[in-house]
Formats: sequence, C-alpha cells, structure tokens
Amino acid sequence: MSRMLTVAAAQLGPIQKAEGRDVAVGRMVRLMERAHRRGVEVVVFPELALTTFFPRHYHADIAEADGWFEPALPSNETAPLFEAARKYGIAFHLGYAEIAEEADETGTVRRRRFNTAVFVSPEGEVMLKYRKVHLPGHAEYDPTRTVQHLEKRYFEVGNLGFPVVRAPVGQAGEVNAGMLICNDRRWPEAWRVLGLQQVELVMLGYNTPSLNMEARGFEAHHLRVFHSHLSIQAGCYQNACFAVATAKAGTEDGCELFGHSIIVNPQGEIMAQATSWDDELITADCNLDMCALGRSTIFNFAAHRRPEAYGRIVGQTGSVAPPVWQPGGAARG
Amino acid sequence: MSRMLTVAAAQLGPIQKAEGRDVAVGRMVRLMERAHRRGVEVVVFPELALTTFFPRHYHADIAEADGWFEPALPSNETAPLFEAARKYGIAFHLGYAEIAEEADETGTVRRRRFNTAVFVSPEGEVMLKYRKVHLPGHAEYDPTRTVQHLEKRYFEVGNLGFPVVRAPVGQAGEVNAGMLICNDRRWPEAWRVLGLQQVELVMLGYNTPSLNMEARGFEAHHLRVFHSHLSIQAGCYQNACFAVATAKAGTEDGCELFGHSIIVNPQGEIMAQATSWDDELITADCNLDMCALGRSTIFNFAAHRRPEAYGRIVGQTGSVAPPVWQPGGAARG
Repeated sequence: MSRMLTVAAAQLGPIQKAEGRDVAVGRMVRLMERAHRRGVEVVVFPELALTTFFPRHYHADIAEADGWFEPALPSNETAPLFEAARKYGIAFHLGYAEIAEEADETGTVRRRRFNTAVFVSPEGEVMLKYRKVHLPGHAEYDPTRTVQHLEKRYFEVGNLGFPVVRAPVGQAGEVNAGMLICNDRRWPEAWRVLGLQQVELVMLGYNTPSLNMEARGFEAHHLRVFHSHLSIQAGCYQNACFAVATAKAGTEDGCELFGHSIIVNPQGEIMAQATSWDDELITADCNLDMCALGRSTIFNFAAHRRPEAYGRIVGQTGSVAPPVWQPGGAARG
Repeated sequence: MSRMLTVAAAQLGPIQKAEGRDVAVGRMVRLMERAHRRGVEVVVFPELALTTFFPRHYHADIAEADGWFEPALPSNETAPLFEAARKYGIAFHLGYAEIAEEADETGTVRRRRFNTAVFVSPEGEVMLKYRKVHLPGHAEYDPTRTVQHLEKRYFEVGNLGFPVVRAPVGQAGEVNAGMLICNDRRWPEAWRVLGLQQVELVMLGYNTPSLNMEARGFEAHHLRVFHSHLSIQAGCYQNACFAVATAKAGTEDGCELFGHSIIVNPQGEIMAQATSWDDELITADCNLDMCALGRSTIFNFAAHRRPEAYGRIVGQTGSVAPPVWQPGGAARG
C-alpha cells in the first residue's frame, strides 16, 4: 500500500498595497474550498501571503513597517483560514511577516522581525515553524534601483535552522515535512540540510519579480522562471523529495511577479504547473514511497557522501581566489 | 574586452575491452586535430578515457586489474596526445586510472589506485590534478546485478579535495579551472567547494550507463540524461561557472553509455550538446566575464551565505530521521 498524499499549491494573484488582510484571507479561503473539492490534504500558500510584498517599499524608520507584520497567528483577520482548515480537515502552510518579542543572542528580549512560514494541522496547531535564512536584497535605500528589495532591512536572518518534522497528514499517515522560503530555493546547502533529515515534502512560497533589478549584465529576463524551476528540480532530485513551490503572481503595486508555481517529484519532474498570474490551485498525488528510491541508491548519503572534502562549505562564507599556476611549478591538487 | 575562451567536449564513442590504448589515443589525436581546425583552446576528454570502463569487470584479486591503470603519464602509449597538444597549442583535460606509489594516511608508502583527471598545459605540464571523491557502485561482486559497477573496489576515495587553479589558457589569458568526475556532478557539495574558490570552468568526464542496475523502483530510463543535465545546469547556475561535461558514449562491452555531452554557461543554459554515440567534438565560445554576474548578485556568497545554518553538511554523513510531532506538543523549529 503506497503512502499517497494529495497536495496543492494555492497560488495567489497580486495583492495591492491598499488591500487589507481580509481580502487576501477571503481569497485563500476560496482556494481552500476548491482544494477540498479536489481531495487535497495539504495546501501550500505563498511567502508573505497576507499582504503585498512590502519589502519593495522603503520606510526610514523600520517600526513604521510594523503594520505589515503579524504579532499573533491566528488573529481576528486570519481566523477564517484556520476555520476553513478545520472544517475541511486540511493541513496548510502559510508565509507571513512575524513580529516576536523574543530574546536575541545576547539574551535581551526585544522586538524581532522575521520572514516566517508555519505548517498548521487541520486542528489549527502549528506543527513546524521556519524563519527565512537566505534574505536577498539590501538593507539601505538604493537610489540606483527603480524598485527596492529591502528584505535585509526589515527581517533578521532566521534563527531556527532548517527544521524537519514527521507530521500526521491525511491518508499517508505521516510525512517528513520541511520548509524553505523564496530565495532559499536557490541554495543547495538549504536543500541538503533538509535532505539530511530525510525530508519527503518541501513546502516553499515565493514572491519573485520578473525583472532582477540587481542584474544589469547578462541575465536575460526569460531565464528567471527557468532558474527557479532548475533550482527546485535539482533540489528535489538530489535530496529525493517532493516540493510544492507556490508563487504570488502578477502585477502587484506595478511590479510583475513571475508566478509559475510547481509541484515536483523526487525524480525532479514537474508534476503540475500554474499557468495563470491569478489565484490558481494546482494539485498532485504524491506517492511518498518514491522518496526511498533515491535515498537508498544514488543518494544513499551514508554510503556516498564525503564530508571530509566539504570543509569550505562551513569553513568560509565568501569565495576566495585560487592560486595562480606557474609554468615549471608543481601541479595543484 | 571580453575574456573569451573557446572550449570543446571531445566525446568518445565506445572503447571495447579488447582495444588497446593506441586505438583510443589515435582517436583522441584526431579529435585534437579537429579541435585545432575549430579554433579550440581547451579540450576536455572523458573519465577513464584510455580504456573500456573496466569497473564493470570483476577481478577477485584487485592487482589483476592493474593493467587498466597508468603508472605514468605521459607514457609511450599516451605520448602522441601530449605531442598533438604541443603542436596545436591546446590545453587538455584527461581522465585515467592512476596507480601511485604513495604514502597513505598512516604514512605507509604503498600502491594506491585512484580515478583521476589532469589538466595539462600545451607544453605538457600538469597544471591541476584531481582524484574522484564520490565513487559510486559497490566493492564486492553483486550477484543480483547483470552488470557490475565496482568503482568502490578498484579505487580509493580521492585525497586531493576539489582543487581550483588559475591557469594560463589561450586568448582569455587565465581561467579559474576545476574538475569533477562523473558521479561527482550529482553532488552539490562538490560544485559548491569549487564555487567557493571562484571556479570559472568546471571540466568533467563521465561514463554513465543508460540503465541504472541499482534502481529497481521508480526511476525511468528516459530520465537518466535529464538527471545528468539537471545536475550540471544547476551546478553552473548556482556557482556562476561554465562546465564542459564529456561522455564516453555508445555500446561498450554490451553496455550502453548514454552520451549527451554538454557545454553549459553560468546561466545554466546548454550551449552545445553531442547528439551521436560516437567520437564527436562540440565547441563553444565562453565569455568568462559572464561568471562575474552571478558571483556579484544573487550568488554573492559573502553577502548571502549563512554557514551557521549548514552544520549538518559536514557534521553528519548519512541522514537522520526527524522527530515525530505530537498533537498538543510544541511546534518544531
């Protein structure tokens, strides 16, 4: 008997700056209803799903941006989502901007802000929380950019690592669930840390612009979706897991987000893909037993990995220039 | 002025068990001549390019396999290759089975065997040597397999790490060159260690069967080339480098090798692809300045990597099971 899990990416179209959480939550509840009709057991919503992608807007005083954050979850505004999950027996993944009154590394309790995602049981319990580690963009206003990307301004680097939990879900019984957020998906280190915990399902939300304002060189716009899919497909293949990657899509505050949400299997194949820039539900039946193939053969980590050769991955952050070879000198290596 | 380097993958068709090194070297010299006519400055030959892929053949006594190894390079049999390189001013990458009388980790000098590649200057000097780290397959005869894959029997794990050297080449002046061998290409750790040394050109040879005898489950044969390309394209994109990936192709000793050599740019795009299962030269002009784009934006490692979250990558070899979530328990993360 296969461990079959029916999952959905619940892509959201744009949320304009003026629209309240009630609008977004209402649309998410309708996607949850649609998911129920499609027999879905796990729904994945995007990164920062409750508002517009506010890191494109600059505030000199960071506290002025606190209105984009959630001090509590559920709240009056997000309660309908939790109610729909309970009604339909669906677990869900939600990205949001989190404010926490929490001790920092010095032990001082203070207001901290993270780009966060939670995996919530149908009963409304948070089974797993993750805070984004790979924050892209910049911390200060950049006058050379037509659109800002201020994630490094508004969020601290996530301090929960890349956790995985074996969570009870649907007919499959249990699934080893982990999470990434947006830019994390481009970093093979993040996928591997999940893979080393036997992750079977990676849930990830993203808000990715169609234009990279930082890349003034060779990067062609038409490769942006390819790069996203390439990273997700490689991550799934090389870690023998499924992924549900859910976009916020379309033109939001005048900025185009590229959409193209996908569900990927442990062979790196795309099982389903969103093709609109609007609210859209895509679904797939995932046979979780597929994860065992890669994990026991090509990617049997215990048999094949060689950590003694990987020291630079944790031993240095930035890259270093290699030595220059001199004719007549000794070979490198 | 761009740093343009013209590279080639010199794919080899099958080399049968009965064929001597003179046959293989003669074919390689003809590919070198063709490369010269195409203006090529760096030629990449496959893994274990001088003989059939002998790890499919079992010898109870490992020393009986020593005839497949090179005790010296160049040798009388390989000298024509070095002469052609000198004649045409072409640097080349060659994979071969290496025997070395060398001290092991205990200090004992003994006969050691590695799956090795070298990057040789037009003058015949070895600028970089690499010994394969990720050995696939198994060490003992496996009666359940119709074809053996005994790399773990015949070779020791490479002990040179993943070195990179800034090597003088052609019109570009210098290139940061690194190497992988075959199965290494599936391991993002290996690519990242090269990327952390600012690699611009990854040279890699492979002998990959069209059928994975180990995978008796869900892996479809038609995905084998996809998986190879996926890993190489992701490695190039995520480390902002070019790769020349060269196959031995076709039916060798009754076993099909899937070919499909490729040259990939730092955007992860395939620039050239071999489409035969025979000796075939594919070429591309690589603008090495393209590597700077990724390295200074999305993959600016110093700005964006978070090694404190990557500890498991070197802290453990195999995977570990995640904790089971208990309803009413605390959230993980």
